[in-house]
Amino acid sequence: MGFCFNNRYSINEMQPVQFMRLLDRHAPEFLYQQVIDFIEKQQKLGTLRAGDKLPSLRKLSKQLEISVSTVKQAYLELERQGSISARPQSGYYLNAEKVKTLMPRPAKWQASKPTEVKCRDLIERVYQAVHQPNTVPFGISNPVLTHPPDKALARLMRSVLSKVAAKAVSYGPINGDPRLRMQLAFGYQEVGVDITPDDFIITNGAQEALSIALQCSAQRGDVIAIESPCYFGMIELIESLGMKAVEVYTSAEDGIGIEDLEQVIKDYDVKACLFSTAINNPLGSMMKDEQRQALVALIEKYEVTLIEDDVYGDLYFGEKRPKPAQLYSEKGLVMTCSSFSKTVAPGYRVGWLIAGKYLDQARRIKRAQSCTTPMLQQWTISEFVLSGDYDRYLIVLRKKLRYNSERMRALIAEHFPSDVCISKPQGGSVLWVKCHSTIDTDKLFETAIEGGVSFAPGRIFSPSGKYKNYMRISYGIQWSEKVEGAIKTLGQLVKNYS
Amino acid sequence: MGFCFNNRYSINEMQPVQFMRLLDRHAPEFLYQQVIDFIEKQQKLGTLRAGDKLPSLRKLSKQLEISVSTVKQAYLELERQGSISARPQSGYYLNAEKVKTLMPRPAKWQASKPTEVKCRDLIERVYQAVHQPNTVPFGISNPVLTHPPDKALARLMRSVLSKVAAKAVSYGPINGDPRLRMQLAFGYQEVGVDITPDDFIITNGAQEALSIALQCSAQRGDVIAIESPCYFGMIELIESLGMKAVEVYTSAEDGIGIEDLEQVIKDYDVKACLFSTAINNPLGSMMKDEQRQALVALIEKYEVTLIEDDVYGDLYFGEKRPKPAQLYSEKGLVMTCSSFSKTVAPGYRVGWLIAGKYLDQARRIKRAQSCTTPMLQQWTISEFVLSGDYDRYLIVLRKKLRYNSERMRALIAEHFPSDVCISKPQGGSVLWVKCHSTIDTDKLFETAIEGGVSFAPGRIFSPSGKYKNYMRISYGIQWSEKVEGAIKTLGQLVKNYS
Repeated sequence: MGFCFNNRYSINEMQPVQFMRLLDRHAPEFLYQQVIDFIEKQQKLGTLRAGDKLPSLRKLSKQLEISVSTVKQAYLELERQGSISARPQSGYYLNAEKVKTLMPRPAKWQASKPTEVKCRDLIERVYQAVHQPNTVPFGISNPVLTHPPDKALARLMRSVLSKVAAKAVSYGPINGDPRLRMQLAFGYQEVGVDITPDDFIITNGAQEALSIALQCSAQRGDVIAIESPCYFGMIELIESLGMKAVEVYTSAEDGIGIEDLEQVIKDYDVKACLFSTAINNPLGSMMKDEQRQALVALIEKYEVTLIEDDVYGDLYFGEKRPKPAQLYSEKGLVMTCSSFSKTVAPGYRVGWLIAGKYLDQARRIKRAQSCTTPMLQQWTISEFVLSGDYDRYLIVLRKKLRYNSERMRALIAEHFPSDVCISKPQGGSVLWVKCHSTIDTDKLFETAIEGGVSFAPGRIFSPSGKYKNYMRISYGIQWSEKVEGAIKTLGQLVKNYS
Repeated sequence: MGFCFNNRYSINEMQPVQFMRLLDRHAPEFLYQQVIDFIEKQQKLGTLRAGDKLPSLRKLSKQLEISVSTVKQAYLELERQGSISARPQSGYYLNAEKVKTLMPRPAKWQASKPTEVKCRDLIERVYQAVHQPNTVPFGISNPVLTHPPDKALARLMRSVLSKVAAKAVSYGPINGDPRLRMQLAFGYQEVGVDITPDDFIITNGAQEALSIALQCSAQRGDVIAIESPCYFGMIELIESLGMKAVEVYTSAEDGIGIEDLEQVIKDYDVKACLFSTAINNPLGSMMKDEQRQALVALIEKYEVTLIEDDVYGDLYFGEKRPKPAQLYSEKGLVMTCSSFSKTVAPGYRVGWLIAGKYLDQARRIKRAQSCTTPMLQQWTISEFVLSGDYDRYLIVLRKKLRYNSERMRALIAEHFPSDVCISKPQGGSVLWVKCHSTIDTDKLFETAIEGGVSFAPGRIFSPSGKYKNYMRISYGIQWSEKVEGAIKTLGQLVKNYS
């Protein structure tokens, strides 16, 4: 039938469903991205191997009934990512895979004992670098920067202001705007969670939701299970509440291991698990829905609370949103924390908490510790969601993030030493990069800041100080030459490290 | 010289300074208010007594070189307050004082032992009543309602938005807008506190500042000294952090007694004092500056932390702003918490913390528990302050609050049973009313809500459940017939109570 890769396979031998998907003009992905996905999939399956020749632009365009320029965009992108190379007068050939994903679980990995979390000045330095002028901020995870909806939001806010200026200065309800809570409830109902607006508490970002959830379920000195690596904001939070953390191995492929967790729960008196159940930060890994279901069954069996951080849930790269763990809760032991900070506007500080059986307690803590959350931002986001613009915006944001992730992986593969391993995120806005074991990314961080680049050093992602040769690099940025230059600089610094 | 009160005293016998003040056209008080102040002062000094005749409108107007209508306004207001009465064909006469201030310290008052604070559903009901439609909200202290600057703020926010829409969606600095912090620093420098913008952390209202301050200075189970009566938000906060409260007697005249406090510090292992050092809520009492200085000396002597809630500091009725306790701190043991919630816009949630020697720790807690505070409201308030409008606005707000306070006292004196005692606030927006000892204001609250009036029942102002026959009534409202009707209703309910 003609659609051939180096004549080893005819198109008939490939799965027709995938071929159909390639042509899906209604899919959220750009067509060129679908071409890339298809080729990468074949590469993964072994259908395509290093050295194989790809069909010519013209040929593929004809067969797929798409324009030559779309195919060209896909090939150029693959070339930029280092997956294929053009050979003069011959065509495009598949390279050996350059971008390595993280290795499987290390043989000697062991759950460390519950550790009193010590807050490190390093975290302070990472935050400082965000506001340092002339520094490319790879250190902070801020997906919104990729495609900021600031103008649309400002327009909505102006309109909101003209309607409710008087109400904006006054106290709102403790648990937040009822209309926004209704839309949140609808959103969760869509993925199957039976929930009402009254089950939500609007918080000052997800961070406050996490803080309230922890205070509901544990006390000073109690043991909290966390993923390893784990977002440093969670580690700092546990420290600020005087609790202890025990790390559970988390794979870059599919998240936390249920059996590992069961062992930790058996070994220590774990009061709560604080997990990024949707997409891990910094790994970008995503649990399967069944795995999440098993997780909830496990924690409810042992009467342990699961605090799920769902902030990256809407930033999946696959076909479906990961289901919230909340869906599987039967005993009300799952508390869901999320926000619009990773999807719309971190500066708006609009997050929420679904507190399960802790609802009353959570509301009292919210009232006692920060009273209410500003209403203006809630109303504005509520308008944004109601208009449908939010959903449309998310589609574009996900595309751009996914595109950035591949581009960044390719850049790192190109400019870093050849022994680095790079995560392949399934969502979110960060890459997790493992450097040679002799490299201390704490030290590298200081040099990088001097060179005008920031990143998040690995050590802050573990209370027991693992990951000292890792770094988290954010691709939640607007792409520019400066960005590419910054990765080159960083790569050079890693190469020169001694 | 002619300016005579009932011919008992000539003007020469009165203090000339006060007479001068009466004529001060540049003072922030309205002229008619100065006339009222003068007459009330004479009454207090005993220069004027019940039954004395006041000079005629025309006579006083001529002598003071002010218009007849200004004098008339003062007399009418005094009449409305029940202080004077017009006798047909004769003139105005001074009444016996109807509005009683709170009695002195009860003989049997005793500092209760440290109590585990139990959060009561009653507080929840008070908050709920705020958002209940058709209920006059005497239950919440919201001075801004008296004179809301919503239009000016909305205008400024629109202008801010057009300049910084992009920055508004992004994360701000952890410790808040540097420009706002600079203006705060200037404000404190004006009253003598040597402080820089870097000493401030902007928080989600004063409530978050208090929460951070408590977490810096004490742990679960520790004893915190509070005023009695004490704002219920503080009591809830202490409860939410699992700490214990010990109450120190606070007088409606001049606040906390230093010796009482010293005894409590000696008797219990007090870790921190959580006091409204400027103006107490619910008493409206104000410590003298010397007393506040002695307080700081005492706590620093015993190495106890003083957390001062200064939210009402700018809403004084006298001539000078009470000095913040921060001014007297030598060891960095004073933490100042305040906000724009009582002066500009509670819904904006812009508060601040001066953390003294706990600065680093406080910044880490802020970062861990709620990350940043929305910037948009900070920028807007910053513009409001910079323009000078804030100071001008405060002058009017104070006038209106003071006016409301007198009006409300008179109304209560008129419509409540004759045995009630009413505080005479020196600032702020609430009255503290003591009813007959047989009255339970918890029960009254439920009946009042049904009747469309809310107030704050006395019991929530004490963790040991004192003040069950007290109520707090807010005059931070826009005056209307509905308000007057609501006080009549409430008075009738108290009269009918059985």
